[in-house]
Amino acid sequence: MFENKERTDIAELGEFGLIKHLTDNFKVRHESSIKGIGDDAAVLNFKDKEVLISTDLLLEGIHFDLAYVPLMHLGYKAVQVNLSDIYAMNGIATQITVSIGLSSKFPLEAVEEIYKGIELACNKFNIDLIGGDTSTSKQGLVISVTSIGYADKKDICYRNGAQEGDLLCVSGDLGGAYVGLQILEREKLVFIENPNIQPDLEGKDYIIERQLKPEGRRDIVDLLAQMGIKPTSMIDVSDGLASEILHICNQSEKGCNLYEEKIPIDPVTYETARELGLDPTVCALSGGEDYELLFTIKQSDYDKLKNDVDISIIGHITDKNSGCNMISKSNVVHEIKAQGWNAFSL
Amino acid sequence: MFENKERTDIAELGEFGLIKHLTDNFKVRHESSIKGIGDDAAVLNFKDKEVLISTDLLLEGIHFDLAYVPLMHLGYKAVQVNLSDIYAMNGIATQITVSIGLSSKFPLEAVEEIYKGIELACNKFNIDLIGGDTSTSKQGLVISVTSIGYADKKDICYRNGAQEGDLLCVSGDLGGAYVGLQILEREKLVFIENPNIQPDLEGKDYIIERQLKPEGRRDIVDLLAQMGIKPTSMIDVSDGLASEILHICNQSEKGCNLYEEKIPIDPVTYETARELGLDPTVCALSGGEDYELLFTIKQSDYDKLKNDVDISIIGHITDKNSGCNMISKSNVVHEIKAQGWNAFSL
Repeated sequence: MFENKERTDIAELGEFGLIKHLTDNFKVRHESSIKGIGDDAAVLNFKDKEVLISTDLLLEGIHFDLAYVPLMHLGYKAVQVNLSDIYAMNGIATQITVSIGLSSKFPLEAVEEIYKGIELACNKFNIDLIGGDTSTSKQGLVISVTSIGYADKKDICYRNGAQEGDLLCVSGDLGGAYVGLQILEREKLVFIENPNIQPDLEGKDYIIERQLKPEGRRDIVDLLAQMGIKPTSMIDVSDGLASEILHICNQSEKGCNLYEEKIPIDPVTYETARELGLDPTVCALSGGEDYELLFTIKQSDYDKLKNDVDISIIGHITDKNSGCNMISKSNVVHEIKAQGWNAFSL
Repeated sequence: MFENKERTDIAELGEFGLIKHLTDNFKVRHESSIKGIGDDAAVLNFKDKEVLISTDLLLEGIHFDLAYVPLMHLGYKAVQVNLSDIYAMNGIATQITVSIGLSSKFPLEAVEEIYKGIELACNKFNIDLIGGDTSTSKQGLVISVTSIGYADKKDICYRNGAQEGDLLCVSGDLGGAYVGLQILEREKLVFIENPNIQPDLEGKDYIIERQLKPEGRRDIVDLLAQMGIKPTSMIDVSDGLASEILHICNQSEKGCNLYEEKIPIDPVTYETARELGLDPTVCALSGGEDYELLFTIKQSDYDKLKNDVDISIIGHITDKNSGCNMISKSNVVHEIKAQGWNAFSL
């Protein structure tokens, strides 16, 4: 990856030198960030707000494959997937900590690429980098991100607030990240067999980007606030629509009807899934990594968002005994099962 | 490690089942923990307090060696080293998140051991486990802990507050964890050469425990509060006394005189270092992992702590131009250099 470029050995800088070098450019923007990097702990103050905290661990070979994930994208994505959890609480993300374990194959220039991606995400989403930890690793790249945000108590959306009759909504479109991953995996195999063949990604930009450069939907949080809608429940779509719907229904002790024809799937996702012999609906239900927001709203809020092209109403909440069902395009009722990505069955 | 014991495959439980299984016993104790495990993010509320956040990444083969670290101790230590950073701000730790990456060699019973250690640390230090992430790992065991705590704004101790004339103090004793590690490494080599030889740890309990089961010094934070002392600066001793003294002096833009004869070293540490051909002072200065608190106090606070057997006054702060010096037992002045553990020069 860095064969022909400059290579600076990280050991030359040492841990503190490295952190300083990598984070010197980062700005601190929030009043709530009293003290960022450089002491034993960061110091924050959110006054009377509730504090939101979420953490994710990304491991090479499990969550990403450096054969086709550029390091800058990886840094960007590591931040985004974490911010997404704060947005899923209907909160505003304000800070992150980033810990990185680096195998000795990484020169300084590679780590700089990861931090460029982190910085890009921080700039775009107005996030302060306030701490972290950097270490060598004997076993490939390890990234742990903790994101911190806030919300007024009255605004926080939990998973367990869905009520019978509520409308089930999702932002953006689904399945793209998964189908994009299948294309990247296909081209990786082609490359392994014949390194002279250039990857064939023509027309696939959208789904490749969905996989490599997902965006947390802060805009949806802002939009809902502008519309005067507080979702009755909310979750982000990281493991596939089916798994997330079940989280909401189980925690709310409700059932649901999901309508297959209403699930938003981009034409590129749809066509590419077909090309690959995959069912586009299954990609949306079980693919994961879309980082869209799935939420329920009261029926009385319907008029406020019915014209928004970025939000789809895909079903409604029923009573618990009715179960969680998908009504297919051919009007067959299927029980929704979680077949999302299981990090332990790889 | 688990050859003769029951082995349950983690994949049987799945990620959500695993987290539930591992964390069901954990109690939530703090009013500030509004919502713990089970949603997209944890929700906390510290009212008018400042929030403290610190994070650490522990990697197998770098930060611990499973050849001699029992898993329960590892879970306990992973929490303690993180809490130590909150105490080093003169704060009270209240919550942690724990993310774990597990290679497939780990059965459920092994992960349960790690969580037993985490639970023990949480019970002992009154900590709520409020979130985390569990995943398979291709790269051995990975543990990432984020600790959260609080303090009144007026009570927080930064590294940069040391003033000329302040007394340099340290809790407990130093060098033990490092010398303990050398004993464990020695016995590991003996075991590799001849697995029939039992490890010879007789009389080494104290330093083995310093290495395997360190304790964050919350008691010192409480003690200082009782004494009515607010340190002018504070840091925890994770990388060795020399490195931490330099952090305080550099960030405070001051110098210091450290007196070798005042450095607290336990007799077992001292004798064992000698046995191993090591200089006990060097072990204290550069060994690390003691997790004691190093702090500076105003001279006017001297009378309040002079009789406390658990706190040693080891030097004083001077002006920047005088440099950072250690006055040896034979009255020779040495410049203090950081030769602490460097995670990038292994």
